[in-house]
Amino acid sequence: MRTIWLEADGSTVGIIDQTQLPHRFVTLRLTTLEQAVHAIATMQVRGAPLIGAAAAYGVALALAADASDEALECAYAALIATRPTAINLKWALDEMMAAVRNRPRAERAAAAYRRAAEIADEDVAINRAIGRHGVTLIEAIAANKKPGERVNVLTHCNAGWLATVDVGTATAAIYAAHDQGLPIHVWVDETRPRNQGAALTAWELGQHGVPHTVIPDNTGGHLMQHALVDLVIVGTDRVTANGDVCNKIGTYLKALAAKDNGVPFYVALPSPTIDFSVADGVREIPIEERAPEEVTSISGLTADGRIETVRLVPAGARVANYGFDVTPARLVTGLITERGILAATRESLTVAFAERAAAAE
Amino acid sequence: MRTIWLEADGSTVGIIDQTQLPHRFVTLRLTTLEQAVHAIATMQVRGAPLIGAAAAYGVALALAADASDEALECAYAALIATRPTAINLKWALDEMMAAVRNRPRAERAAAAYRRAAEIADEDVAINRAIGRHGVTLIEAIAANKKPGERVNVLTHCNAGWLATVDVGTATAAIYAAHDQGLPIHVWVDETRPRNQGAALTAWELGQHGVPHTVIPDNTGGHLMQHALVDLVIVGTDRVTANGDVCNKIGTYLKALAAKDNGVPFYVALPSPTIDFSVADGVREIPIEERAPEEVTSISGLTADGRIETVRLVPAGARVANYGFDVTPARLVTGLITERGILAATRESLTVAFAERAAAAE
Repeated sequence: MRTIWLEADGSTVGIIDQTQLPHRFVTLRLTTLEQAVHAIATMQVRGAPLIGAAAAYGVALALAADASDEALECAYAALIATRPTAINLKWALDEMMAAVRNRPRAERAAAAYRRAAEIADEDVAINRAIGRHGVTLIEAIAANKKPGERVNVLTHCNAGWLATVDVGTATAAIYAAHDQGLPIHVWVDETRPRNQGAALTAWELGQHGVPHTVIPDNTGGHLMQHALVDLVIVGTDRVTANGDVCNKIGTYLKALAAKDNGVPFYVALPSPTIDFSVADGVREIPIEERAPEEVTSISGLTADGRIETVRLVPAGARVANYGFDVTPARLVTGLITERGILAATRESLTVAFAERAAAAE
Repeated sequence: MRTIWLEADGSTVGIIDQTQLPHRFVTLRLTTLEQAVHAIATMQVRGAPLIGAAAAYGVALALAADASDEALECAYAALIATRPTAINLKWALDEMMAAVRNRPRAERAAAAYRRAAEIADEDVAINRAIGRHGVTLIEAIAANKKPGERVNVLTHCNAGWLATVDVGTATAAIYAAHDQGLPIHVWVDETRPRNQGAALTAWELGQHGVPHTVIPDNTGGHLMQHALVDLVIVGTDRVTANGDVCNKIGTYLKALAAKDNGVPFYVALPSPTIDFSVADGVREIPIEERAPEEVTSISGLTADGRIETVRLVPAGARVANYGFDVTPARLVTGLITERGILAATRESLTVAFAERAAAAE
C-alpha cells in the first residue's frame, strides 16, 4: 500500500487520512483541486515528499476539470499557498508546470496524471536508494556491537512511508536494516504539538514489526548522555545549498545533543528537498506558524473508544506554534541521499546534484 | 495563599491538588502519613522545595499518630521512597530527624510541627532573596533595551510558587521584575509529559498578570536562533558539588541551545537543593522513571467542561518516561541562590555555603 494512489476510475486520487491515525485507519477520495488543497493544508497528507506528490495530483485534478492557462495558474497558486516550508511542494508544482504548460489543452490533463504518477514512482525509487545507502551506517554500528546488542536509532517527527509515497526517508535505512535481520530499535520522539512521532512513526514501525519506544521530545538528550542512542536519523522539509537542514520544530535541539555527545546525526532526503536557491537556512527559510489550537488542545482515544479533543492550557493563555526549525550544517554528520551519503556542504551537494545546482543559478 | 499550610485545627495539613490545575482549583486536607506519601508520589504536591516541605509535614502527621522511634523510622522510609531525584526531600527529612530524634516522645509531634513550619517559612524567605538577586539580571537586560521593549525569559517546567511554599525559585526574579514594572514576557515550555509548564506555570503567571506564551518543548531552540530569548531561568531538583544541575527532563536541551546562541542560562535554587555528597551529576544522580501512562495518555478539559483522559499512542506501543536530566555545569551561566548569584563551580558553592559543604565531608 502507498500513501497516495490513482483510483480505478483513472481520475480520483486516493489518500490515507493521516489525521485519524493511529486510532482509525481511514482512506479518502480526492476528486477536486479544492479537496487536494484541503488535504495538504489540514495535514491529511503531510511529509515533504508526500506533499509534493499530492500537489502534483492536485494539478491533475484541476486540469481534468478545466485545462485553461488560468485554471493552471490558479491551481499552482492555491497549492503553493498551502504550506510555506517544504520545498518539495514548489519542486513538484514546477515539474507539473513544465510537463503541461506547452501542451494543447486537450492533452494537459492526461500529461498531468502521467507526470504525477512519475513523481510518485520516482519518490519510491529514490527512497529505496536512500535505504540502500543509509543501511550501511547501521551495518557499521552493528558490526561493532556484541552479538544480540541492538542498534539504537533516534528519530524525530515522521519521515516514514507515511511522509512519502512509500518506504520513507529517515525510515528507509531502518526498514532495510530490519528486513536484513539487524537488531534495531528506534527511539521515537512523540513530536509535539501534532505528535507525528507518537501517532504516525510508532504506528508504522509497529505495523512493520520494528521494535521501538515512544519518548517525550524532552528525552533524547538524556538518552544520548547515557549512550543509549547510536545514531540519529531525521527527515527534512528543505536543505539549503550550504547544507542547513530545515525540519520539524525540535530537530535542532536533538542535533545539538548529538554533537555534545558524539552521536552521529544524519538527515535522509530525496534530492527534490534541496533548495539551491537559498544558502543560510536560519535567515532565509520561511518557518510556518500554525494554528494555536494545535498547542492548546490535543485529540486522542477515550477509554470507551471515542476520539475526543481536550484542552491542555488555561483558558485565554497565549501560545506560539512554529512548525519547523533549522539545524545548521555544522551539526549535521551527513546527508543520506539517493546518490549516496554526502557531507552537508555546498561543494558536496553541488558535485552530487550538479544539474539541479546549475538550474538554480 | 501558600501551597501548603496548617489548618486551624493545628494538625491537619492543607495543600492544593496540583493534578487538577489549570482546569480546577481544589484543596485537600492531609491527616495521615499515608496521605502525605500519596500526595507526593502522585504529584498532588510537586517541585523540589514543596516536596521537602510536604515531607516535613508528613513526619509531623506520622508523629502525631505515633511518636515512637519505629514510627519515626517508618515515616522517614516511606517518605524518602516517594521521589528519588529531588534532594530537598532528603534534606527536609534529615532536618526533621535532627529536630525530633533526641526529644522525649511526648514532645516529638509538637517539635515536628514547629520545624515543618520553620522549613516552610524559610523556603519563602529564601525565595524572596533569590528574587532580589535574580531581578538584577532582568534589570541589566532591560537597561539595554529600547523603551517599551520587553525582556523575554524562557523557563522550563514549573519552578513557580506552586513548586515551592510561595514565590517560586525560577519565577522569583520574574515576579520581582513584574512587580517593579519592568516589561517582562515569559516563554513557557509546556513540559511534556506532565505539562507542568502549560498547566501550572501558565496558570500562575496568568493569575499574577505576567505576560507569557506557552510553547511546545521543541520550540526554544528556534526562538533563541532568532534572538527571541534574552535569558533562560529554570529551577532544579538537585545541584551537585561541581555545579551540575538536575532538573525536569528536557532542561539539558535548552541549556545546549542557550550555549549555542549566546543566551545566558541561569538556574535558581534554594541551598537545600545543593547535594555536596555528589560531584558528577550525569553519573551519580538517580533519575526517576515514572509510569508509562504519563506519556501514552493525557488529561484535559473537553468542550463541555469535563476532565477527560485520552490515549495518544497506538495500542501496545512501548514508551519510556524519564523524569529528569542533568545539565553539566559547563552549560550553566550562573546559579541564583539566596546568598547571591554564583558560578556553577565547586569553589563558588563551597565558599558560599561553607557550613553545608563541611557537613557533607
